[in-house]
Amino acid sequence: MRTNYVITIGREYGSGGREIAEKLAKSLNISFYDKNLINIVAERSGYRVEILDKADEKAANPLFSGYNIPPGFDVGTINDKLFWNQSSVIKDLAQKESCVIVGRCADYVLRDMDNVLNVFIQAPMEARINRIMDRYLIDVPNIAKKEIQREDKIRRSYYQFYTDRKWGGNQGHHLVIDSSVLGVDGTVELIRTMAKMRFDLE
Amino acid sequence: MRTNYVITIGREYGSGGREIAEKLAKSLNISFYDKNLINIVAERSGYRVEILDKADEKAANPLFSGYNIPPGFDVGTINDKLFWNQSSVIKDLAQKESCVIVGRCADYVLRDMDNVLNVFIQAPMEARINRIMDRYLIDVPNIAKKEIQREDKIRRSYYQFYTDRKWGGNQGHHLVIDSSVLGVDGTVELIRTMAKMRFDLE
Repeated sequence: MRTNYVITIGREYGSGGREIAEKLAKSLNISFYDKNLINIVAERSGYRVEILDKADEKAANPLFSGYNIPPGFDVGTINDKLFWNQSSVIKDLAQKESCVIVGRCADYVLRDMDNVLNVFIQAPMEARINRIMDRYLIDVPNIAKKEIQREDKIRRSYYQFYTDRKWGGNQGHHLVIDSSVLGVDGTVELIRTMAKMRFDLE
Repeated sequence: MRTNYVITIGREYGSGGREIAEKLAKSLNISFYDKNLINIVAERSGYRVEILDKADEKAANPLFSGYNIPPGFDVGTINDKLFWNQSSVIKDLAQKESCVIVGRCADYVLRDMDNVLNVFIQAPMEARINRIMDRYLIDVPNIAKKEIQREDKIRRSYYQFYTDRKWGGNQGHHLVIDSSVLGVDGTVELIRTMAKMRFDLE
């Protein structure tokens, strides 16, 4: 009998991916990890949360690498250290509990494990602009668009730096879904249906 | 009330996409179109089926363009003529009946219509090799692999030539699914679930 399973969720900025992931975890009654992984890394490693936070889901900016690296971080940037430590936490979690993990290259980190469903959430630019305008009370579509492009670029650099895969590409994803078709709740429901079929859940 | 809807299915060679599409149409009790679109084009246009068949889902080979073009095909290659005529047939179908359409750039052709769900079926190379070996009784994995790469290349050139989009890319797709996760029947079931939610079907 399968004892635990993991759903990884990659997402375009403004696609609602994080909200979908959180609701999915709740509906399946399993753990949810995104930024909170940093706390586990901090606990395990002794690195300060504030330092890790700055490096979260970012490849090192070459201009700043070496900057702010505390003693003991002898090799690699703080971003590398976070990535390596976080990957080790993710692998441990995937061994012992069922969970949803957002971003953090988790699909790549867990590529050799069998109990994993890799999902990517996207949406057309127009839908993302509307979501970001709503969420951050932005009045000008073009400002939302620039923010989206900036955030996507950060996520893309991060993912491609650590995985050598194309971000948002199909490689390694079992399901890629446009969240604007069914909305947040419908998308949760569809991923949940797939997870139930894949992992023989009740 | 929505009167009809269309599901377009793009697919990697060996992913089982065609079989999935056919079973999906059957399970939803709607029409199924793939190669049989040629017959409608032939009927409407008077072009011979055998000539259209050679150009089906192919961009013109520059070496052969102009070759075998019957009188009346004054502009464009036979491939162009087929594409234009087929696109017009696809648009007509999408106005009046519910159906599943495989390939033929139908996602692109119907890009301005609202009652369309665009799906792309893929699978890891290993799963596709196994499927093609089984289906065509091929003993050597590498022969199956070469055939897959050759067919994918033809589909890619065709799609990119007529759409200016990336084939297999996410653009324009509402759902991209790896058929090896749930198998043919499970994949049919998941797409059916999405279609039911999207089009408010019983």
